[in-house]
Amino acid sequence: MFEKTAIAGVGLIGASVALALKKNRITKTVCGFGRNETNLKNARARGIIDDYALNLKDLAGGADLVVLAAPVRAFKALADGIAPYLKKGAIVTDVGSVKGALVYEMDSAMPQGVAFVGAHPIAGNDKSGIDAADPDIFIGAKCVITPTAVTDKAACQTIISMWERLGSKIEILSPERHDEILSSISHLPHIAAYALVNTVQELNPGFFNYSGPGFMDTTRIAMSSPEIWRDICILNKDNIIKHLIAYKQQLELITAYMNELDWTSLTYEFEKSSDVRKKLRDERNNSNNEDK
Amino acid sequence: MFEKTAIAGVGLIGASVALALKKNRITKTVCGFGRNETNLKNARARGIIDDYALNLKDLAGGADLVVLAAPVRAFKALADGIAPYLKKGAIVTDVGSVKGALVYEMDSAMPQGVAFVGAHPIAGNDKSGIDAADPDIFIGAKCVITPTAVTDKAACQTIISMWERLGSKIEILSPERHDEILSSISHLPHIAAYALVNTVQELNPGFFNYSGPGFMDTTRIAMSSPEIWRDICILNKDNIIKHLIAYKQQLELITAYMNELDWTSLTYEFEKSSDVRKKLRDERNNSNNEDK
Repeated sequence: MFEKTAIAGVGLIGASVALALKKNRITKTVCGFGRNETNLKNARARGIIDDYALNLKDLAGGADLVVLAAPVRAFKALADGIAPYLKKGAIVTDVGSVKGALVYEMDSAMPQGVAFVGAHPIAGNDKSGIDAADPDIFIGAKCVITPTAVTDKAACQTIISMWERLGSKIEILSPERHDEILSSISHLPHIAAYALVNTVQELNPGFFNYSGPGFMDTTRIAMSSPEIWRDICILNKDNIIKHLIAYKQQLELITAYMNELDWTSLTYEFEKSSDVRKKLRDERNNSNNEDK
Repeated sequence: MFEKTAIAGVGLIGASVALALKKNRITKTVCGFGRNETNLKNARARGIIDDYALNLKDLAGGADLVVLAAPVRAFKALADGIAPYLKKGAIVTDVGSVKGALVYEMDSAMPQGVAFVGAHPIAGNDKSGIDAADPDIFIGAKCVITPTAVTDKAACQTIISMWERLGSKIEILSPERHDEILSSISHLPHIAAYALVNTVQELNPGFFNYSGPGFMDTTRIAMSSPEIWRDICILNKDNIIKHLIAYKQQLELITAYMNELDWTSLTYEFEKSSDVRKKLRDERNNSNNEDK
């Protein structure tokens, strides 16, 4: 049980973590921090946070746990800003979608006696902001923990136990492996969705009127925050470019089969994809999740 | 009110049309036809169809309305097969996702006194089969009617009125325009989703374990029938190849901005996409539909 949890960035994930920590009695109080005081006031009024700080000293002072839930590009400044005020034994963690170099920067920014543990709960959706906050979005979701050679083992175990109590399934990965995997399964699909919307927009915006449920599903994540996804592209550039090339090759393969009228090979590609995706749906259904 | 409606192909859409026609008292009886007698028996047992035919003579004989709801590649053989048995004044229509040359073939296949009216209800999802049949999937959905120069005007009006009574919003398009639009807004997204799954599968099938709700949404339509989508690729090849090229250009644009570290342009692309997609969601919400 933590006495004081500090959450830097009270958006969808930050607010959901706050609610989940309180619901599961993992923290006594939650103190929020963010650029927008109106948002913090709203979060307090709704009981998502107990109070908020307007400077990093008030945020970090006395905190047992600090959760970085701001856009990833703000992490370095936040870590540097809270470092002087962190008490010995405090744990700093995050919920960022990119790990890689960032985790090593965080390790370096921590003062003596304070541990950083990288974490990435794979939850959330196209929504953003505290209106969509939900303490249960982590239940059944994966949470990737990315320890490094210098990560304090006890602190790492505390963060693992915390996410397990929030209902998540833990996976341990190196920061580099995390970024490679998430590039393929999350970052690439976001770019594919953004590009799909822009393709139709360039062809003829009137065509959107004919979109059915399939188009809406496929492009739902194109509503995600452009700034957050720009930052992810900056921080995971090499993996994403590699996977964009792999994706274009798959599209070129299909185009080639169509040009060559090789309908057998085309059908094989569609069958392979359909079988794999149905298997994934069935696995999710069997683990008592919807197809989500 | 039709006395007898014949439905060739009792899958998700065929069965949903059957249920919707009966629910809205547009037909007295529905006779089904398909390759799989067990499926037809099930459909009859559930009251989706009143009876079924094992040959095209029994299906078409006495029918006022024939709905082609089989995979599009079967349309020509079905039209030729029912032609000798159609009574004067009967109307043949379809629910196919591709129009183009097919509509003219259907026009030519009709005997004297029988009208063909092409139609495409933009409804359905990744599911298939009668288990997912639902008379209400057409409510609020668009239905594209694709008359040609020879389409009988009264028959066309009958089909329009029928779809309006099923709750659909009618759009009239030439077969060619229909195929161009649907290529961009439906056929391209299906291929994008198939290719996305195959990209991850080629990189490392283990990566699927880390997929979140965004990946599941984006690739849901990759569960669609490979055979149906192969046929759509065959029949709408030129539009789809053109739109695949346009899509690859959008992906290359994003790749180039990332390689050039041009994060301002990248953000602009993401913002454009996000704004357009949110506007589309809001339009759907305002017309009392979910984001579906």
